[in-house]
Amino acid sequence: MADAYLVGAGQSPFGSFPDGTYRSLFETAYDRTLESVDGDLDPDRIEEAFLGTLGVGGRQIGLSAPAATEHVGLHGIPTTRIENACASGGYALRSAVATVRAGMADLVLAGGYEVMTDTSADRTKWWLGVSGETEWERLSGTTFAGVYAQMASAHMDEYGTTAEDLSRVAVKNHANGARNPDAHLGFECSLEEAMDAPAVADPLNLYHCCPTTDGASAVLVASEAVANELSDDPVRVAGIGAASGRVGLFQRPEPTSIPASRTAAERAYGDAGIDRPTADLDFAEVHDCFAVAELLAYEDLGFCEPGEAGRLLREGRTDPDGDLPVNTSGGLKSKGHPIGATGTGQVVEAFKQLRGEASVQVDNPVRGLAHNVGGSGGGVTVHVFERAAEVDA
Amino acid sequence: MADAYLVGAGQSPFGSFPDGTYRSLFETAYDRTLESVDGDLDPDRIEEAFLGTLGVGGRQIGLSAPAATEHVGLHGIPTTRIENACASGGYALRSAVATVRAGMADLVLAGGYEVMTDTSADRTKWWLGVSGETEWERLSGTTFAGVYAQMASAHMDEYGTTAEDLSRVAVKNHANGARNPDAHLGFECSLEEAMDAPAVADPLNLYHCCPTTDGASAVLVASEAVANELSDDPVRVAGIGAASGRVGLFQRPEPTSIPASRTAAERAYGDAGIDRPTADLDFAEVHDCFAVAELLAYEDLGFCEPGEAGRLLREGRTDPDGDLPVNTSGGLKSKGHPIGATGTGQVVEAFKQLRGEASVQVDNPVRGLAHNVGGSGGGVTVHVFERAAEVDA
Repeated sequence: MADAYLVGAGQSPFGSFPDGTYRSLFETAYDRTLESVDGDLDPDRIEEAFLGTLGVGGRQIGLSAPAATEHVGLHGIPTTRIENACASGGYALRSAVATVRAGMADLVLAGGYEVMTDTSADRTKWWLGVSGETEWERLSGTTFAGVYAQMASAHMDEYGTTAEDLSRVAVKNHANGARNPDAHLGFECSLEEAMDAPAVADPLNLYHCCPTTDGASAVLVASEAVANELSDDPVRVAGIGAASGRVGLFQRPEPTSIPASRTAAERAYGDAGIDRPTADLDFAEVHDCFAVAELLAYEDLGFCEPGEAGRLLREGRTDPDGDLPVNTSGGLKSKGHPIGATGTGQVVEAFKQLRGEASVQVDNPVRGLAHNVGGSGGGVTVHVFERAAEVDA
Repeated sequence: MADAYLVGAGQSPFGSFPDGTYRSLFETAYDRTLESVDGDLDPDRIEEAFLGTLGVGGRQIGLSAPAATEHVGLHGIPTTRIENACASGGYALRSAVATVRAGMADLVLAGGYEVMTDTSADRTKWWLGVSGETEWERLSGTTFAGVYAQMASAHMDEYGTTAEDLSRVAVKNHANGARNPDAHLGFECSLEEAMDAPAVADPLNLYHCCPTTDGASAVLVASEAVANELSDDPVRVAGIGAASGRVGLFQRPEPTSIPASRTAAERAYGDAGIDRPTADLDFAEVHDCFAVAELLAYEDLGFCEPGEAGRLLREGRTDPDGDLPVNTSGGLKSKGHPIGATGTGQVVEAFKQLRGEASVQVDNPVRGLAHNVGGSGGGVTVHVFERAAEVDA
């Protein structure tokens, strides 16, 4: 199997853009991706594209992916829309890596886009709701905040996790996002603010929930030969893993873990040869759609034992200067969560970290991961990236 | 690059099923796919799935693919929803082949599903319309029938193609579909009936348009080792090609051809080593969503020169006993067109033809293709299949 490498990555600003469309936002992400490539790249060398989107709002439901690639001048290449709810971007990257590993193409674009803020709140809620389990969750009135609130309650009951732990996720991620010029909510918040915010779905308050966001992101995946030609400092896709899980939370054995995250991580670690994630990884972008989701990720990805996530966070171990910094980009909480763009948006941060270009830069990282969750765990991807030059040396 | 093989394929009946859901229809297709495998297959050996759907009706928009695989008991595998409008199934197969060719899995499921008839006609029209070009086609009132009517008018003007030529597509495909127990409109129609039907979008009448259909289909893609283990008569995926095109018809240089079909076919023929399609192919399933689309396919896939499609049809060359039988399944016109299920539904017919199990069986075919078009040509796949035993012998 041939190796796949990242040679470029870029995102549009994430935020609320009344004049933005999925195409204009994607164009910004695409242009920035091309600019991030070290060498001279003729875009006609891009052979295939996989773009993730949920299609919130329903403007161009079918064929929006080829409509996006034609908009940026990529005519004639196979372009596939990938949809796995909030994990659409992660799965788009997976297909791009498969295409390069298969030798079917030497340079493939993966990306995603979503426009969420030009639609009424009710309509956006419907579009998000239809990514949850339909019969027993959405139609009985449960929103995603409600589903994650159940997970938070269970984790608090089972392990003594506190509202302060949840709020500390917001404090950390906002502190990081405040330094990211592309963040949607790029401001700091104090622990008091994060504790005293209005309730959304008890025990989750406003600061425990990510915003609805407009944005796009993209990455370029290359074969080894093309990576060496185009990049001074390519990033190897060292491990990929993905898994589906029961779409409804009520269908799973217990609500304090996302089994698909565990399985996807096992597969990615196996692919990358990682035995001890805390020792082998230098940073992680994890899917913090709600504060509890970041805590579950620590446990499901093997950063700590079940029930220990709150402690890991409180001890500062996932701060930028801790031993495993998490969500240096600001995460979904502060950077924002434009559904289809989130997965490859995480990879933009990983690319920057490994090339020393991040807004909150970790000290000389060699290896990191991106963890992308669809719905409440119906589909998960984990990708491990490493700095090729560092590992080869 | 490793080769990929089909070891099983099956579809639900296509039709209008008031009690059917996307999950129940997919279950039928999946069960039939497993039954079609020669050897004993433990379903736990299926490692990944790619499922196509447009999601007409919007019941479970996000994560419907993992919801479908969990319904049939495939828990934990990576499952990706693919959406490229009417070419969703073809692109799902493409990703499955890439995964096997990459060596990332030895056994992968590709399939699709759509439920269209339990929604009001207006609502179905909306769901289909949003797969067309939004700003200049849908919002100005153009339906897909309208777009294809423009193509038909242009072809008639340019080449003298006649309403009778269009009607002969319906006559041929209904004659084939009448013998397919899984066809939606499984009855014959006379040339008079196909000429005298009510207008839909002039020059297209009711018999020049495929129905809206409920259904599901699936195929199993295997590595060579697993194919040899599980199948007495595996089908090799000899060539794959795909291309995107301008999503709006008005954006293309001329309306008498679908450029993405030409490009996808060139790529598939190159991959399969086909120089002369009429000599090298023994049958073809082509995307006849409207009668003119089948005629365009003859020309775009190189079965004849531009403008010669009507003659090819009139001379019976694409009849079951002609030198290149087309749509022996009945095609979209008679078998039906459940959007996401259509692409892999065509592959079910190709699998049966190459194993001598088709309802309208071609005489000892060695090689055939499936051609799947999204929208009016925004995305196209062409796959060439060949009987491995015959070619190896």
